[in-house]
Amino acid sequence: MGLLVVGSVGLDTVSTPFDKVNDALGGSATYISLSASYFTGPINLVGIVGSDFPKVYMKMLEEHNIELDGLKIVEDGKTFRWSGKYHYDLNVRDTLSTELNVFEKFDPVIPENWRKSKYICLGNIDPVLQGRVLDQMNNPQFVVCDTMNYWIEGKKKELLELLPRVSVLIINDSEARLLAHEPNLIKAAKKIRDLGPEILIIKKGEHGALLFTEDVIFSAPAYPMEMINDPTGAGDSFAGGFVGYLHRNRDLSPKSLKAAVIYGSTMASFCVEKFSTKGLEELSILRIKDRFREFMNLSRFDES
Amino acid sequence: MGLLVVGSVGLDTVSTPFDKVNDALGGSATYISLSASYFTGPINLVGIVGSDFPKVYMKMLEEHNIELDGLKIVEDGKTFRWSGKYHYDLNVRDTLSTELNVFEKFDPVIPENWRKSKYICLGNIDPVLQGRVLDQMNNPQFVVCDTMNYWIEGKKKELLELLPRVSVLIINDSEARLLAHEPNLIKAAKKIRDLGPEILIIKKGEHGALLFTEDVIFSAPAYPMEMINDPTGAGDSFAGGFVGYLHRNRDLSPKSLKAAVIYGSTMASFCVEKFSTKGLEELSILRIKDRFREFMNLSRFDES
Repeated sequence: MGLLVVGSVGLDTVSTPFDKVNDALGGSATYISLSASYFTGPINLVGIVGSDFPKVYMKMLEEHNIELDGLKIVEDGKTFRWSGKYHYDLNVRDTLSTELNVFEKFDPVIPENWRKSKYICLGNIDPVLQGRVLDQMNNPQFVVCDTMNYWIEGKKKELLELLPRVSVLIINDSEARLLAHEPNLIKAAKKIRDLGPEILIIKKGEHGALLFTEDVIFSAPAYPMEMINDPTGAGDSFAGGFVGYLHRNRDLSPKSLKAAVIYGSTMASFCVEKFSTKGLEELSILRIKDRFREFMNLSRFDES
Repeated sequence: MGLLVVGSVGLDTVSTPFDKVNDALGGSATYISLSASYFTGPINLVGIVGSDFPKVYMKMLEEHNIELDGLKIVEDGKTFRWSGKYHYDLNVRDTLSTELNVFEKFDPVIPENWRKSKYICLGNIDPVLQGRVLDQMNNPQFVVCDTMNYWIEGKKKELLELLPRVSVLIINDSEARLLAHEPNLIKAAKKIRDLGPEILIIKKGEHGALLFTEDVIFSAPAYPMEMINDPTGAGDSFAGGFVGYLHRNRDLSPKSLKAAVIYGSTMASFCVEKFSTKGLEELSILRIKDRFREFMNLSRFDES
């Protein structure tokens, strides 16, 4: 079975101090799927767009072995649009506008022949919708879930109901502190794992990522980037690389989970090198493995 | 020759949400020396205190093979005192009071028989004084220097004059951004190395540390601490472990520098476990090596 990916598909207008793009391809499901496509296939994408969604983007996704049977196209509807502006310090961004458009009525319907998928990646959408996706599945085995402060603050109860159904929760450090009500990240991680997810990944942007399981704490470095052109989609690219690698290998050992975190970090580093999804469109597994080994050189040390 | 350490020796009154200590042993030279003493000896400490400085602290330092011939005791003078309060989020602290006392007139005089030291660690003091220490030395070969935002903002010109005489600069991430006027840490590191120091270490608190040389970027993880009792002295303990390890081995290869960064991180992790210098007073090289190996487990991964 393919890897099921559910999330937003949208058009982003992004400006940084260096450049700007209008109505470029974006959305969590888009980044996750493209990133995962280098490791496994097919990717079964579930999302919603309007009839204004450019055919050229659909073609590009299909060329990456991303199946779009689950991408609902609303006739005369308008695709979800987000517009943001990054500051000179790219850690800081302002959302200029969010037009939900057809995404406002997104109610994911999983095509019949995709319901047996064992590996599922739930992009950052309303936890109620994430739950409805799982309701439709026959015995999902490995559920990776992203969320954000907006849902932690606004739909806490619904999120807490979802978490026991999730294998891996991926959030950033400020979201972890918010969800656990605890400034110490190590204590926060324990608290969050007690809420359900067996595995927790805390992304720390330019500081790397932490993996927590019952027995393991793993600290992954960040790739040293001198030039970040567009941070949009980094977190989704991380999730895609992580789950795509695991879907291919069907190995959830600590060794494999650690490698998956590094593959996730690798894909995020490629993502931010270019605007929109451009950094993920023309990669090869060879380039990805080269960068994986750069991560190794970056963090390896020995007793001497 | 011994390892020369110059910096403050003081009495700290520290409160956290969990506990409080009054007039406990503190100061950059104190933490650096104690930390380094587990790797090498003797440590030659240069500093200044008043006659109120408790003899019991001097005895404890001497028991760690820290020589105090360079510790000036000002008769009827009062020792430097700092008082601070940490918040529930221990990353945030308020300085409640700083009494410079005898430290205001600190003009480090290096005892004649210590001037041949090849390894020098300059704790965080006025860069003018750091320079005057180097003026007194006969051909120093490896100079490790700490500084802070206070000097970067207030004595930029003097600091810039000092940096070409420094082998290793150790600062934290916000100080690196401030010194280089550059939000991207990797670019900031390049700029700072262009100012003189061949080696730059950027400490990132709970996110670990980065080592930059001409050929190497190394990312060291942070030890996952659930209970930090007192963050005071962590940076100085890092510097002490780093330079102490290198002083013992006299090996400045990339392999050795990476291990030194991990030993520095190890000592910082012991330091914050207890108030004041208590976390550094009763260690053993065996416990230190055990924790070094924990750092290894924390960050090691393989291709799979």
